[in-house]
Amino acid sequence: MSQYKKIDEQDIAFFTQVLTSANVRTTDDDIQRCAADHTEDLSFLPEVVLLPENTTQVSVIMQYCHQHLIAVTPRGAGTGLSGGALPVWGGVVLDMKRFDKIIHIDTHNFQVTTEPGVITQVLMEAVREKGLMYPPDPASKGSCFIGGNVAENSGGPRALKYGVVKDYVLNLEIVLADGTIMMTGANVLKNATGYNLTQLIVGSEGTLAVVTKIVLRLIPATEQTLLMLVPFRKAVQACEAVNTILLAGCRPSALEFMERDAIAWSMKYVAQSTVSLPEDIAAHLLIEVDGNDMDLLMKEAETIASELTQYDIDEILFADDNQQKEALWQLRRKVGEAVKSHSVYKEEDTVVPRACLPELLHIVKEIGREYGFHSVCYGHAGDGNLHINIVKQNMSDEDWQQKLPEGIRKLFKEVVRMGGTISGEHGIGWVQKPYLDIAFSASQIALMQSIKQVFDPKGILNPGKIWC
Amino acid sequence: MSQYKKIDEQDIAFFTQVLTSANVRTTDDDIQRCAADHTEDLSFLPEVVLLPENTTQVSVIMQYCHQHLIAVTPRGAGTGLSGGALPVWGGVVLDMKRFDKIIHIDTHNFQVTTEPGVITQVLMEAVREKGLMYPPDPASKGSCFIGGNVAENSGGPRALKYGVVKDYVLNLEIVLADGTIMMTGANVLKNATGYNLTQLIVGSEGTLAVVTKIVLRLIPATEQTLLMLVPFRKAVQACEAVNTILLAGCRPSALEFMERDAIAWSMKYVAQSTVSLPEDIAAHLLIEVDGNDMDLLMKEAETIASELTQYDIDEILFADDNQQKEALWQLRRKVGEAVKSHSVYKEEDTVVPRACLPELLHIVKEIGREYGFHSVCYGHAGDGNLHINIVKQNMSDEDWQQKLPEGIRKLFKEVVRMGGTISGEHGIGWVQKPYLDIAFSASQIALMQSIKQVFDPKGILNPGKIWC
Repeated sequence: MSQYKKIDEQDIAFFTQVLTSANVRTTDDDIQRCAADHTEDLSFLPEVVLLPENTTQVSVIMQYCHQHLIAVTPRGAGTGLSGGALPVWGGVVLDMKRFDKIIHIDTHNFQVTTEPGVITQVLMEAVREKGLMYPPDPASKGSCFIGGNVAENSGGPRALKYGVVKDYVLNLEIVLADGTIMMTGANVLKNATGYNLTQLIVGSEGTLAVVTKIVLRLIPATEQTLLMLVPFRKAVQACEAVNTILLAGCRPSALEFMERDAIAWSMKYVAQSTVSLPEDIAAHLLIEVDGNDMDLLMKEAETIASELTQYDIDEILFADDNQQKEALWQLRRKVGEAVKSHSVYKEEDTVVPRACLPELLHIVKEIGREYGFHSVCYGHAGDGNLHINIVKQNMSDEDWQQKLPEGIRKLFKEVVRMGGTISGEHGIGWVQKPYLDIAFSASQIALMQSIKQVFDPKGILNPGKIWC
Repeated sequence: MSQYKKIDEQDIAFFTQVLTSANVRTTDDDIQRCAADHTEDLSFLPEVVLLPENTTQVSVIMQYCHQHLIAVTPRGAGTGLSGGALPVWGGVVLDMKRFDKIIHIDTHNFQVTTEPGVITQVLMEAVREKGLMYPPDPASKGSCFIGGNVAENSGGPRALKYGVVKDYVLNLEIVLADGTIMMTGANVLKNATGYNLTQLIVGSEGTLAVVTKIVLRLIPATEQTLLMLVPFRKAVQACEAVNTILLAGCRPSALEFMERDAIAWSMKYVAQSTVSLPEDIAAHLLIEVDGNDMDLLMKEAETIASELTQYDIDEILFADDNQQKEALWQLRRKVGEAVKSHSVYKEEDTVVPRACLPELLHIVKEIGREYGFHSVCYGHAGDGNLHINIVKQNMSDEDWQQKLPEGIRKLFKEVVRMGGTISGEHGIGWVQKPYLDIAFSASQIALMQSIKQVFDPKGILNPGKIWC
């Protein structure tokens, strides 16, 4: 049973005073909208949805909720895949969508200061117009918020060459559970002053503080890309090829793996796809190189192609123009949605040291056979980050509920044995909590929970996430 | 007065049982060696120096010291510049020099697992033999330990292109104050599982835990470099040129600034220098580009040279061979030692958003005039990280003790106003503590101290550092 106070009229009156009634929502539309994210088919109803537009308002709300023991769940665009934005204990959803301003693009220092409710792609395009690049590009970039990316430490295809969100966050403005406002660091590239609060907040899934401002470092934009789709007749060879390419000294900006079903289902889902798939193909690698000198890119693509001849591959497709590039990327980005539209499913977000990928793929299929599930695997092979979509199909409800979690436990134990962990970029949130004991020892969990206690002594911030 | 228990015969007997008598040192040699580091002329005597060689021994020692309230100061190679390794409350120095093994270079996953007592340059060369690169290269790389680099989140010239230590640490084995052993993360490039303990430990200056094992990511080694020394007739123009070079799309691997005195004193100190310095030169930029294609490097160097023609510069010196390159780098690396040999001094390690560098240099000189001190400035201009060596010379002892700290406060306030902070890569340690209130608000300090409390409830780990 919840320890949290239920929202009453007095609370609503207070929130209305702070935000005006237009930004205190209790209508069905808003409640339903904020009850779900992109994680499976989960639904948890908030009692009220609040839409603050500045840091002071967030601070006042937090102070009030802290005082009255009201659960607060910060929400970005709701594209999360671990249930991080779900108000599992009801209470307040802090909908950050009015924090939608890019505050300053600093072209001299290659930095951008932004509010968290800006859509990631909007931010990427805004800085690109100034000749700069913000590389992390999660599949949901067209709809997710940069604040959600910070909360989950998102990655995306380009992480291989350019790193993940944490590698770009310089400084954050945060509001603690009790309403205290602070910056976590400084707007500098090097910092040896005090503890790294910035990196403690990145990836903490809204359990430590509400992020209200983000300072990101940027890099000079690259102008050119080459994209190739490589069909493999053996899926394990596609995984092996990843390391071959990197050991040959190539530095692709993306190295994406897709099993046959992943791309086939996505092709069906994205009707406008122009690519057709031969019968004997078991998997694909989608490989991108980027830079400013097309001759160099061609040379790199040729090196990659020549390294790949040692594998059993079909003809490599080079994307001819931007339209074809975008079509291929759409195929890749829509795999998750395609699988979701196809069947009830669970998505795992395993990550291992890259060279263990062939072994991981082999183990997934073996465990699938043992526990009777079908899986569709794809993901950021260059980082060792394999998304495993387990589809229900013909599995009985009983097996799905009871047998499957055992299979997932077994899989996660193998992942940790390889030096990996249970989430690479989706977070623990609500759905991966039962497996936390596989990733962490009791003393690691105790230590992290003590840190949570420091930031949020009453446990009102995004309760039920990561920790029980 | 110290709250810590003094070391007695019983303690020595216990330590001897754990480590054998050869590794429990109370002789003058060892006590004196561990009383100082490279910070000014400070000296604090430990009561005993312990030399563990494995994690279990560290754990047993910590458990004992925790139980008996004995102060423990972990020590790397003692090359720190903020007094981080000084046992200011006596007690135990935990000398990590026997942790000197590179455990595994993983050429498939581009990772190295090492003990913390390995000399940074030894580690760099070992991975380079396998075609891999660990980029962070502090000036002291020939003698400092990788463990100390992790403790201070060291940088170095290459940080501009390749980032600092924190950008390479994937996972750490640590021992908490009470002896608990744990890993902080996983050996993967992406991680969204729990809080980022790894980055909380990096740069925490030995106040949160003892690091006993380090997993670093590596990158493919670059084979070629070009090095140029650019003499400027106006120091502020040298600072301005930094941004001009970067905005022109160049990505140098180093962009080092040296005031006239810095290079002049270093030339005198490093007798074998072959470079001579014209009278009208106020500052130099030392610029390195790196890569694998010499034609591209030449092109980049030419672009840089052509951008620089807009400034009042003398002839650019291109290093002809490895010997000349090394001579130039020696000049740069020895500036700190040269200044130290020249006068009593204090070294500040300010960092600002890069474009603020000309303003910072101007302010340093202005404050110097106001407070009557001479300064020698140099550092990693590409990162906005300016080392300011304040030399005592003719300043009275009274002014040095009382007036100077006021000048430093004023300087640090300006740095923070620009969005910068008080240490870029040297840490707060013992000597910068009095200025912490400039970098952080009271609530930031309280939060960080509460984190310290979680890791080290009795305050036995590196007491007196960062926090009072």
